[in-house]
Amino acid sequence: MAQATIGDSEFDRDTAVTPREDEDGVYDAHLSAGWTIIHAVNGGYLLALLGRTLGQALPHADPFSVTAHYLTPSAPGPAVVRTQRVRTGRTLSTGQASLFQYDENGAEIERIRVLASYGDLDALPDDVRTTAKPPAIPPIEHCLGPSDAPAPIPGSSAITERLMLKLDPTTLGWAVGAPSGKGEMRGWFGLADGRDPDPYSLLLAVDALPPTAFEMGLTGWTPTVELTAHIRCRPAPGPLRVSITTRNLAGGFLEEDAEVWDSADRLVAQSRQLARALRTP
Amino acid sequence: MAQATIGDSEFDRDTAVTPREDEDGVYDAHLSAGWTIIHAVNGGYLLALLGRTLGQALPHADPFSVTAHYLTPSAPGPAVVRTQRVRTGRTLSTGQASLFQYDENGAEIERIRVLASYGDLDALPDDVRTTAKPPAIPPIEHCLGPSDAPAPIPGSSAITERLMLKLDPTTLGWAVGAPSGKGEMRGWFGLADGRDPDPYSLLLAVDALPPTAFEMGLTGWTPTVELTAHIRCRPAPGPLRVSITTRNLAGGFLEEDAEVWDSADRLVAQSRQLARALRTP
Repeated sequence: MAQATIGDSEFDRDTAVTPREDEDGVYDAHLSAGWTIIHAVNGGYLLALLGRTLGQALPHADPFSVTAHYLTPSAPGPAVVRTQRVRTGRTLSTGQASLFQYDENGAEIERIRVLASYGDLDALPDDVRTTAKPPAIPPIEHCLGPSDAPAPIPGSSAITERLMLKLDPTTLGWAVGAPSGKGEMRGWFGLADGRDPDPYSLLLAVDALPPTAFEMGLTGWTPTVELTAHIRCRPAPGPLRVSITTRNLAGGFLEEDAEVWDSADRLVAQSRQLARALRTP
Repeated sequence: MAQATIGDSEFDRDTAVTPREDEDGVYDAHLSAGWTIIHAVNGGYLLALLGRTLGQALPHADPFSVTAHYLTPSAPGPAVVRTQRVRTGRTLSTGQASLFQYDENGAEIERIRVLASYGDLDALPDDVRTTAKPPAIPPIEHCLGPSDAPAPIPGSSAITERLMLKLDPTTLGWAVGAPSGKGEMRGWFGLADGRDPDPYSLLLAVDALPPTAFEMGLTGWTPTVELTAHIRCRPAPGPLRVSITTRNLAGGFLEEDAEVWDSADRLVAQSRQLARALRTP
């Protein structure tokens, strides 16, 4: 199979939306069953779809800061995105988007609300004074994915077929019943069809690894309450390195901080989410 | 002067809003000139005012995750806050708020838009499994505030009279012309009238220290594009310790990560903002 390209890949097709001709800023969407974990639609896929929609609705195409509040669980199938231009500026524009699905009577139910500021990543100066260092992750051939024994990722999930996800074995103890107790998850990330990363796929990357809670010995679901992603640089072609850290699990909530580094060793995205640590039933 | 209390302090009076009897969810406000830095109204004060307003508008009173996009500069004077209930849940409710001021023709100009989820901090279980450690800050008597030579904080700002801000001398090099080059700012934080912290004053605390950019040798303004704060615990009485870190200054933007610790050594708030690093004129 030829390598997929940006604009012509499964990810691009599954995040495409169609503007309604009779309603300005309203887009019809279809949530693909191909990006589900167990039965839940992956939050990063939904963020990418909404981020791409806002990129069409706003005068600036690149997400700089995107915040999503997850209101009700999304399901594969038809959806509508209603966008609003909040402010249009020279270098930054701010917009809002809501994803709705339909109940049995056809009434709209809001799934996710997003508030975001967009700009032009290619217009940024080249100055870099970061003190951040790329995460220490073994070479990709020494990392493990769903297809690799002895540490298959539990749960049959359609999304695993669409991702190139190779996790650092030192953060995979949970998969063999021996969680490290540390709130860390690291690995290599790409799209299975070889499509290179772009700012929208970075929104998928920040929420695509297994939850750090697994390495902390929790087995329950950790649904996202809110996730904010900062896209800091257009990613270079090639696989990404993603590092997720949790420092504070308290009161039944935890934060997950994600860093995404590209093949040019640039910190291309930072994100933080607040998630609930639900008791195992 | 007797110590001010929660509900009866300058901070409480200056963040109070009045619901309009004829418009549900709409509140009149007055932005106090007492919380300005040079001529700009402090972003943390504005976040606290909006956070408190949403606490009145939503069925839950405590901010859990609050995101603000700063659209246009606020000025002291009259303002109006328009709120919307996005979702009401059993443990969490989500709401939106916009702060408007008026142009010379009386037309509303949006200053800030907030999207937030609220809950009940007192209803959270006591489990704490944090690996985070409190920042290493010298005893308060060894830290320096605006009134302490040899490191007064430049710029005459009304807000400095309302804060108890004592900064770690190791992050004050910028004030004596010798910035460390590190993106770090640490100190003790409280309200000058002795009012104890609560979830709303934590929203002030996360954006009240001098910008980390000063210690990185930048002298220009670093306006906030977006700030997200997670309130993780109701703070115990007494002074707070605030630590702010910047790891990635690139492309004319930087993130500022803040941690707030209370007198009981609990991590009570985490925040991250994306700010622009403007060239000095």
